[in-house]
Amino acid sequence: MSSVRVHNFSISLDGYGTGEGQSIDAPFGHAGMRLNEWAFGTRTFRDMLAPGEGGGSFGVDEAFASNWAEGIGVEIMGRNKFSPYRGPMEEEWNGWWGDNPPFHTPVIVLTHHPRPTLTLEGRNTFHFVDADAATALAQARELAGDLDVRIGGGVDTVRQFLAADLIDRMHLVVVPIVLGRGQNLWQGLEGIEERFDIESTPSPSGVTHLTFTRRG
Amino acid sequence: MSSVRVHNFSISLDGYGTGEGQSIDAPFGHAGMRLNEWAFGTRTFRDMLAPGEGGGSFGVDEAFASNWAEGIGVEIMGRNKFSPYRGPMEEEWNGWWGDNPPFHTPVIVLTHHPRPTLTLEGRNTFHFVDADAATALAQARELAGDLDVRIGGGVDTVRQFLAADLIDRMHLVVVPIVLGRGQNLWQGLEGIEERFDIESTPSPSGVTHLTFTRRG
Repeated sequence: MSSVRVHNFSISLDGYGTGEGQSIDAPFGHAGMRLNEWAFGTRTFRDMLAPGEGGGSFGVDEAFASNWAEGIGVEIMGRNKFSPYRGPMEEEWNGWWGDNPPFHTPVIVLTHHPRPTLTLEGRNTFHFVDADAATALAQARELAGDLDVRIGGGVDTVRQFLAADLIDRMHLVVVPIVLGRGQNLWQGLEGIEERFDIESTPSPSGVTHLTFTRRG
Repeated sequence: MSSVRVHNFSISLDGYGTGEGQSIDAPFGHAGMRLNEWAFGTRTFRDMLAPGEGGGSFGVDEAFASNWAEGIGVEIMGRNKFSPYRGPMEEEWNGWWGDNPPFHTPVIVLTHHPRPTLTLEGRNTFHFVDADAATALAQARELAGDLDVRIGGGVDTVRQFLAADLIDRMHLVVVPIVLGRGQNLWQGLEGIEERFDIESTPSPSGVTHLTFTRRG
């Protein structure tokens, strides 16, 4: 059976995966880009943001960051990752990523406001689905074939899949900031450590990588 | 000027320094001893719990744990660390530590219900003081002379001294458990990282040591 994976998911010391007040001008709310700065230094993210220009680190941040795409056949994301809008889906909004998003796989967007499938360049096909975690995962597995499924965030989506015990591997990045408000990854997940082996790896960049591996 | 230090202060992944439902039978509430297990393996804590019997690790957990006493002239603790009781102070309660507590310095206990000074063996003198953080610290410095002041916890007390920007060095131990409820160290401390240099060190025991060093 293929795995369900989370990669490069940043949280603050106090567990917030995004700040308060998300909008088109502030995708992470009052957190700004502070949760993501560690990633911008890596070869993987540089290549995503400016393809072909080269550059970027090859240290431990890159070692973790680079694992995000290999073996992935589909991503499941929440509507709040896809769009800054709430309520009925704006059909002129095609995501944050331009004409050729970095996923290069089908993407399932969980939303209570489905819209027609959106096909962009580079095998990026967005399916808008109103379903619970288990149902969406079954659909994702059909699209992924033998490949793995990535849960791409945001916070609510990762939390929902964790609560349903559907995640096999999770890579978190603890950024040493105290956000104080926003969406907290740990909310409602008391005792979740019992299902995982957890490893901690610090980086010279200041972040700490945490890996959760589901116990067999 | 002497330093104000926090040592060996354990929190869960979600920031709780103690669980819900503290009582005489459960000093850390529903957290049980899970926040403290890492310490029980160290030479420093073994020696505290069973003096003279030897044993204990000499790895990174011990390297951090052993720093708690050197150069300390006084400890400030909250009433909730001293006692499981709330409200008016029970005079027959002399703390959790028996006749010869491990502090071996004067201790200031912050409480709204002062009682007469309590003198136990081994230079352990407990002064019960109803004061804010800055006032208590001034009193502590008089008792400490040239030596440093340790803020011994619990959560409310550490938080109060952090909020008042009175802490120079803080050693936290992040235990990979999600407690979900209790007292959260980070509450009300948004942005506190701006005042500190933060370093992260993982241990083979599974915990991650975080040191906060106040910027000069």
